[in-house]
Amino acid sequence: MKSILLLVLDGLGDRPNPELNGRTALQAAFRPNMNHLAAVGQTGQMHPVKPGIRSGSDTSHLSLLGYDPEKFYTGRGPFEAMGLGLDVRGGDIAFRANFGTRKENGEITDRRAGRINNGTELLAKDLSMNIDGVDFFVRAGVEHRAALVMRGNNLSDLVTDSDPHEVGVKVREISATGESAKFTAEVLNKYLTETRKILDTHEVNLERKKNGESPANELLLRGAGLAPSLPLFREKTYLKGACITGIPMISGICRLAGMDLIDVKGATGRLDSDFSAKFAAAFKALGTYDFLVMNIKATDVAGHDGDAIAKKNAIERIDRAMGGIEGHLDDSVICITGDHSTPCVMKDHSGDPVPIVFTTSGIRKDSVRFFDEISCARGSYNIMSGDVLRILQQLSDRSEKYGA
Amino acid sequence: MKSILLLVLDGLGDRPNPELNGRTALQAAFRPNMNHLAAVGQTGQMHPVKPGIRSGSDTSHLSLLGYDPEKFYTGRGPFEAMGLGLDVRGGDIAFRANFGTRKENGEITDRRAGRINNGTELLAKDLSMNIDGVDFFVRAGVEHRAALVMRGNNLSDLVTDSDPHEVGVKVREISATGESAKFTAEVLNKYLTETRKILDTHEVNLERKKNGESPANELLLRGAGLAPSLPLFREKTYLKGACITGIPMISGICRLAGMDLIDVKGATGRLDSDFSAKFAAAFKALGTYDFLVMNIKATDVAGHDGDAIAKKNAIERIDRAMGGIEGHLDDSVICITGDHSTPCVMKDHSGDPVPIVFTTSGIRKDSVRFFDEISCARGSYNIMSGDVLRILQQLSDRSEKYGA
Repeated sequence: MKSILLLVLDGLGDRPNPELNGRTALQAAFRPNMNHLAAVGQTGQMHPVKPGIRSGSDTSHLSLLGYDPEKFYTGRGPFEAMGLGLDVRGGDIAFRANFGTRKENGEITDRRAGRINNGTELLAKDLSMNIDGVDFFVRAGVEHRAALVMRGNNLSDLVTDSDPHEVGVKVREISATGESAKFTAEVLNKYLTETRKILDTHEVNLERKKNGESPANELLLRGAGLAPSLPLFREKTYLKGACITGIPMISGICRLAGMDLIDVKGATGRLDSDFSAKFAAAFKALGTYDFLVMNIKATDVAGHDGDAIAKKNAIERIDRAMGGIEGHLDDSVICITGDHSTPCVMKDHSGDPVPIVFTTSGIRKDSVRFFDEISCARGSYNIMSGDVLRILQQLSDRSEKYGA
Repeated sequence: MKSILLLVLDGLGDRPNPELNGRTALQAAFRPNMNHLAAVGQTGQMHPVKPGIRSGSDTSHLSLLGYDPEKFYTGRGPFEAMGLGLDVRGGDIAFRANFGTRKENGEITDRRAGRINNGTELLAKDLSMNIDGVDFFVRAGVEHRAALVMRGNNLSDLVTDSDPHEVGVKVREISATGESAKFTAEVLNKYLTETRKILDTHEVNLERKKNGESPANELLLRGAGLAPSLPLFREKTYLKGACITGIPMISGICRLAGMDLIDVKGATGRLDSDFSAKFAAAFKALGTYDFLVMNIKATDVAGHDGDAIAKKNAIERIDRAMGGIEGHLDDSVICITGDHSTPCVMKDHSGDPVPIVFTTSGIRKDSVRFFDEISCARGSYNIMSGDVLRILQQLSDRSEKYGA
């Protein structure tokens, strides 16, 4: 049976760019391989979640993998924790966190600890512990940002923030907003008491004080979220699935779905990622797995930078790196799309649909010959919402019959 | 940030007309402004509610404004009451009503009071009153038609009709079909007893009797409906919204949504409406409001008349009146569509989709160059159901991100 390769070029969709004579980065790029796939395949436009929704990479990848985000997206906490590389499992409670500065009387004087920009990894490392049977894991992010994950029995996300969201007031005691969360609130308050002892005397903070900098002596928690228990991808689809990505949040989602993660040396999730290494790993994995999702982040990075030339160049390098892809069409269904648009003129995600191409040997090819936002609008899958996984399953002749 | 103009040409969609050589009214019309917007924008076909649904203006405008009619359309009563210009508020109970003729023994001899065609406004005026804390408001419509609105506490629409729906039988006592409606039924019966006293001795009816005409001495109620409490448009969308329309039902819906109503002198909701005045008001309002919906009824009127030439002429006058609209594309997202099709050959609404164009500066324009039912079927938004508001929000870069 055919394997499936779902290639997600992150933030692929664009809008017309003045510096590219009104073309999108994809239109302007030299992309013979992508165009070949369009010429021999079926194309269209795709709303990753639904029309008009400006989706994030988290909600969109859930949807692409067949998990309805309205059901499984439980807020930013768990997904940002995954994004920082924490191992988040279904049932865990996750928080977004800041390192802040607390006076002795409990008053918060700075919610960002002077925008601390080093040493937080050392602080985070010393804040992982077990209290009353609950495991706490902390990971530091950019500047003052961090995430906390709690794992144990009888935990609930119905708890308030310890972050007062303003300065000049005391850090808040965490309280339960539902009966089932009493234990969670209790153990969280115990945990925060412990962290204060550690942070107040931590060598990173002693050093900061010596230098006249605000100590990062309070872990301010906000936005408790329950990590979703995703039905296993394999049980849901009968596909043995794997993921290649340099982005911890996406590997986190795939891990939640029970998919294997394939590590590729040189896959950085940045503009300098080794695309050739990724494609080589992907083509190899198609022999072992039924389904492979591969995310390339560079297009999104360039979009957020507002750099249309860099986005065009990234697309050209990706296209070069996929050379030989047409040799896999007899054994595989190949799909290239984006998880959302990141127009360079916006420097952020938009709700514009993304172009999509499906191809494999024997497919009903349509008349579209170029892979870009405008050409694919005349394709045979114009215009779809979600549904990508089901279409891939059917094109690989693996769908269960519905009826007789 | 960009403002949004949603221009709804009522009943715009058409089918081929023999007298226009097989073209739709829109295809046949000289429409350089609409075609320009299509040429620089994104086009498509749109099912206002969903494919195959022959929507009314009420269900369709709810959908266009982002209120799912399956959830918020509570039957004809409240919407017809709005259509007669009654101020209907969320929680009100509304009925469609006829003026009928009742004999002394209560038997209904004519459900239309001899198709009475004048004097009903005077009758209606005298039927507004307060009983047991409930306010009753009546407004007369065309011929024998009218509407009743009740406003007060503890009201329910689970009540039967007083209209027996046949002649030669007695008017029905209203009864509750649910426990919660006992008070409503009781106060309605009291109210109808009061109205009978007033109508039996009303000078309009004394005059009719003198002329040998059937008196309009019974207000026959049917189809109780609870007016929906619409979530406020501003709270739902973060858009400050306003409406320009000559149609009371549409202004009623916008009022329920908490939008401002902009009065335009000369806006009649008929073929003779002052389109130029409406566009001038709309362009001005774009400086003050984030979102403006403007309905032009003339296209629907001509469709119901089965007059393809009149429909074509109305479209040409509307196109002329929108001259200069392209000057607003840097500051606004402009959308032209219909609320449903009213094919001249049908003289009624059909379920055919309507053409739609979205445009603004920097949009991904598609290859369609003409604004009509056939050309737009090759557009990049072919084929959409509802979703118009969300797409307008995203094109104006005002959407909240869903995820990160």
